[in-house]
Amino acid sequence: MAGKFITLEGGEGCGKSTQLKLLANYLRSKNIDVVLTKEPGSTEEGKTLRELLVTGDKDKFDAISECLLYYADRRLNLTKVVWPALKENKWVISDRYADSTEAYQYYGYDKRVDFQTLQSLYKIVADDFKPDLTVILDMEPEVGMRRSFAKAQTMEVKELRFESRQIEFHHNLRRGFLEIAKREPERCAVVDADTDIETLHKRIVEIVENRLGI
Amino acid sequence: MAGKFITLEGGEGCGKSTQLKLLANYLRSKNIDVVLTKEPGSTEEGKTLRELLVTGDKDKFDAISECLLYYADRRLNLTKVVWPALKENKWVISDRYADSTEAYQYYGYDKRVDFQTLQSLYKIVADDFKPDLTVILDMEPEVGMRRSFAKAQTMEVKELRFESRQIEFHHNLRRGFLEIAKREPERCAVVDADTDIETLHKRIVEIVENRLGI
Repeated sequence: MAGKFITLEGGEGCGKSTQLKLLANYLRSKNIDVVLTKEPGSTEEGKTLRELLVTGDKDKFDAISECLLYYADRRLNLTKVVWPALKENKWVISDRYADSTEAYQYYGYDKRVDFQTLQSLYKIVADDFKPDLTVILDMEPEVGMRRSFAKAQTMEVKELRFESRQIEFHHNLRRGFLEIAKREPERCAVVDADTDIETLHKRIVEIVENRLGI
Repeated sequence: MAGKFITLEGGEGCGKSTQLKLLANYLRSKNIDVVLTKEPGSTEEGKTLRELLVTGDKDKFDAISECLLYYADRRLNLTKVVWPALKENKWVISDRYADSTEAYQYYGYDKRVDFQTLQSLYKIVADDFKPDLTVILDMEPEVGMRRSFAKAQTMEVKELRFESRQIEFHHNLRRGFLEIAKREPERCAVVDADTDIETLHKRIVEIVENRLGI
């Protein structure tokens, strides 16, 4: 059986990490060798990049340098984790991949990086390689944000203010993922993630079975 | 007086750092406000990238991820150091810039990154911005290597062996810088760096005066 590359995408609080593990367990129950990975930070050097990207002043990088770092991390993920595993006929599931960069930087931040730049970077890093399947976990941003905050147990006034300030960003982000799915329907599947964990898992398994034929 | 951007380029042991300081002193004596910078590592975040790039296993990055990191560092240097200083009409002198990436990655490592990729990255990071003047300090690689080793006081048998294994790389590197100078003669000036510090300084000052008219 040839290896497959599946990516999970979606906004904050959509349940990606939980579904990633459940999907891995399901595939393993079908005797498939599964490797889990994530972006950013799947490799030793990538962890340093992740640390740089997610900590400190939010304005320390301009959009272009931030994209270059995400793409450097992506290249490390591909060359050290994804491609070697696929060569060994393993299935790889990645928690976020290039669609996240596009959704956040282009749609979320309202085109602060132009589309051509993102495409050029993708080409440089991955050439024609694409995921076999991208599952986009879709839900109302308000629901995702509430979940995300509940999880972090940080439902304080200050952060609700932050939530309210940022909600337009999260709507743009959602629209971005949906645009990507519309543009590449053969690669992408959108699943309604506003449901319980088990139902969502079943929906994802159904998509994987239909699209990749287990 | 409008700001100017000068870059110093060259192989190992060519004397860039010394000449950078002497040139800065000279320009300051002409009442020019000078900012010194370098690549990689001119900014807070760039220092982390430099640390990543220059330490550890030499194969920890493939060529593409290495170039992305150099270009992320370059973007930080431009947005946080070079462009703000030029806007204030200061002159900026950078110890290495994009020509080094091209000379090392494309010529030195014998086209391990293709030319188009480097050009795309440059365009993404700097658009049409170029140095006003690039001074290439040229010398026989054997001379530079000897200087470099003498400076490090590490003229041991082991490192001479390393030197001999690597000498082709350094010849390619030199050829690379000369090719760049031939391609862009209006921006670049090649200076024979196999001489004493004071003579070389005078040669560089002459170039700067002729090209940029002080």
